[in-house]
Amino acid sequence: MSTVEMEVFSNSQLIVLIILMLIGGEIFTSMVGLLFKKFQFKKMENKISSLADNDPSTCQSSELEMVEKRDFESLESGNHETSLDSSVDLLKYKSIKFLCFVVLGYFIAVQVLGVSLVSTYLALVSSARNVLKNKGLNSLTFSIFTTVSTFANCGFLPTNENMVIFKSNSGLLLILIPQILLGNTLFPSCLRFCVWFLGKFFKKVESDYLLKKTSEVGYFHLLPSQHASYLVVTVFGFVLTQFILFCSMEWNSAGLHGLNSYQKIIGSLFQTMNTRYAGESIVDLSALSSALLVLFVVMMYLPPYTSFLPVKDDEEIYKKKRNRRGRLLENILFSQLSYLALFTILVCITERQKLEEDPLNFNVLNIVVEVVSAYGGVGFTTGYSCDRQTRPDSNCVNKFYGFSGKWSDEGKIILIVVMMFGRLKKFNMDGGRAWKLL
Amino acid sequence: MSTVEMEVFSNSQLIVLIILMLIGGEIFTSMVGLLFKKFQFKKMENKISSLADNDPSTCQSSELEMVEKRDFESLESGNHETSLDSSVDLLKYKSIKFLCFVVLGYFIAVQVLGVSLVSTYLALVSSARNVLKNKGLNSLTFSIFTTVSTFANCGFLPTNENMVIFKSNSGLLLILIPQILLGNTLFPSCLRFCVWFLGKFFKKVESDYLLKKTSEVGYFHLLPSQHASYLVVTVFGFVLTQFILFCSMEWNSAGLHGLNSYQKIIGSLFQTMNTRYAGESIVDLSALSSALLVLFVVMMYLPPYTSFLPVKDDEEIYKKKRNRRGRLLENILFSQLSYLALFTILVCITERQKLEEDPLNFNVLNIVVEVVSAYGGVGFTTGYSCDRQTRPDSNCVNKFYGFSGKWSDEGKIILIVVMMFGRLKKFNMDGGRAWKLL
Repeated sequence: MSTVEMEVFSNSQLIVLIILMLIGGEIFTSMVGLLFKKFQFKKMENKISSLADNDPSTCQSSELEMVEKRDFESLESGNHETSLDSSVDLLKYKSIKFLCFVVLGYFIAVQVLGVSLVSTYLALVSSARNVLKNKGLNSLTFSIFTTVSTFANCGFLPTNENMVIFKSNSGLLLILIPQILLGNTLFPSCLRFCVWFLGKFFKKVESDYLLKKTSEVGYFHLLPSQHASYLVVTVFGFVLTQFILFCSMEWNSAGLHGLNSYQKIIGSLFQTMNTRYAGESIVDLSALSSALLVLFVVMMYLPPYTSFLPVKDDEEIYKKKRNRRGRLLENILFSQLSYLALFTILVCITERQKLEEDPLNFNVLNIVVEVVSAYGGVGFTTGYSCDRQTRPDSNCVNKFYGFSGKWSDEGKIILIVVMMFGRLKKFNMDGGRAWKLL
Repeated sequence: MSTVEMEVFSNSQLIVLIILMLIGGEIFTSMVGLLFKKFQFKKMENKISSLADNDPSTCQSSELEMVEKRDFESLESGNHETSLDSSVDLLKYKSIKFLCFVVLGYFIAVQVLGVSLVSTYLALVSSARNVLKNKGLNSLTFSIFTTVSTFANCGFLPTNENMVIFKSNSGLLLILIPQILLGNTLFPSCLRFCVWFLGKFFKKVESDYLLKKTSEVGYFHLLPSQHASYLVVTVFGFVLTQFILFCSMEWNSAGLHGLNSYQKIIGSLFQTMNTRYAGESIVDLSALSSALLVLFVVMMYLPPYTSFLPVKDDEEIYKKKRNRRGRLLENILFSQLSYLALFTILVCITERQKLEEDPLNFNVLNIVVEVVSAYGGVGFTTGYSCDRQTRPDSNCVNKFYGFSGKWSDEGKIILIVVMMFGRLKKFNMDGGRAWKLL
């Protein structure tokens, strides 16, 4: 759910948003990083080949290049490997090139498939088509926008009501569920599967290199074999936990009223998938039971590739710990949770007036949902209802934008900071080590 | 604040409670552990001396004892040290004996001083004396009960209203503040200071051993020099943070109404001291601003000896990591926070009806305060007010017992489990290592 009314955007504005979501997504940006790495290698490769072709007369300049190349290499790999074995380098270069193609192919294939499925659904099901017609939305734009937004986990939809208006369109929800998983939590596992699968038919050597020397490739989204498999188990474990709690707490709630059992099951599944981290909603979150909201907060807090992973040998822990930041920075940084607590307290301070006057809309749980959702890049919000005001304000009009839309400017600025902070979380996951809890 | 009305207890029942609080406190139980360790050593010492006195005829049996002694030693120290150097052992034995005396002396001195100060205060200040007279409470019993409870961080007081009724008695609050610190968060630093101070005049060798070989003594409350000093800074840093926020948010609140500036400052100081972990209150917590309650939750969550401690060399981390539990247990355990989230969700489930019908009394923040307070052994509760019911119930009577008194039986049982779990927290502070947040 977004904090603006989405239907104010024209078709061309929506297209601009689509492009922004396409190039701003995690997978796309990581692909750019990978391409950059490839080009660095290519430059190096050219030097190696020119080195091999040299005749003795240009010896001096080639020596210079040799040094330059070595510098380059140490700059690029940034670690222990200082061998000049060009055949290994060549293999690494080719593997990264192969990986680029796989990621790009994956990125295009999943979204093209998504768009065609959504378009087909809209063409076949009149109820969904009519909603768009009434809102004056172009059917193709809607398909592309929804698919791209879901895959990139933006949580935007061209409709004011987000997915609430489609809650009985179980087919559409079923099409979007894989997009959520493929675009985020399951991406590393699927990528590894694709590399393995494509390696079976062509580029066997590169695929082997990628699968075996995963950590040397240095691509954040390519996880080692064991982690990639446990990730799948963890993701489905989390979904199952939420799904069970959602069904048991909300089966007869107002949010799911009017749906049949099949629609309720698909809706619950869709809603629980969205906590990590697509952020689309088929119900008003503020109407959900508190137990569920607390669970959602935990889920939103967890980073995408959180996984159960059996404890390894001490040796490995030791190695990992060595590779870290400077002493000073280490001492200053707090843990991620401390920062979240701090931000929550700050918002409670800026909104203290409303917390007192309008306690049913403004309560700490809703603020925590908003803060953690911003931190996790989810985009959930609990909504604001004039009916919940304890001292009714006759000027109050129910809007479609979320709870944070009612915050003070200071509160909104803090929320923006939280969003940026959340984007940078992977650089501080082991913060707070200078604090001993004893 | 407790969940029973304290004034139902007779004088003799209060005395029984005093004894229970005395022997159930953290410092007293740790002293018993220390005494046990001393006796083990003593037994060993006797063996060493008997070994020295042996004539050749009893050689066989003394060899047996030798082996037995070695077993004993490895059992006792449980680590690397296997040398049979009896002079070092003797020194360790004497040091532990010395430490026993220091802890016992500290335990008695601080509480005797506390009782005499509170009694003197009651003898001098008629307003406080009158409160007790009206309630039919014995003045001496009150002094002892209050001191012991404060020192042991129980949070009980013989009055129904806890400290609210004494909020203008700044002198009494000032007497109790040191008791809170000396009995809990500052205990390790004060103990170290006492050992050092007494070592200056007598038992120099033992004191040196205790101060330098702190980790070999293996007494949980005797921390290394650097940790003990940073602990003082951390404790006062936390108090200052809370004090500033308390004063800025609550200066003109209803809770502090009728107090002059001096009384407000002392009252605020007293209240913020109590979050770790005495749990006495001069205001109704549910009337406090949410920002403050969130900060209190963080403070209650932190273990007593939480301290900022500059990051050490990797070597040390490596060593520390080795000394740990079995692989299986390691994999099963969650982090402390996950358990707290789980308990909160469970309580939200058991109290789901009331969360819906009585949202101003039953909200997630209050439940979290209750759960974290139980986990930290604080004893804070936010109270329940009939005036806050959105659908007023004419049978509702305002009682002095806390919020959890209104919970369902299942909720109360969960809270009891949380309390026990909190008592055991030091054995699981590094739980959840099998989960990778990435």
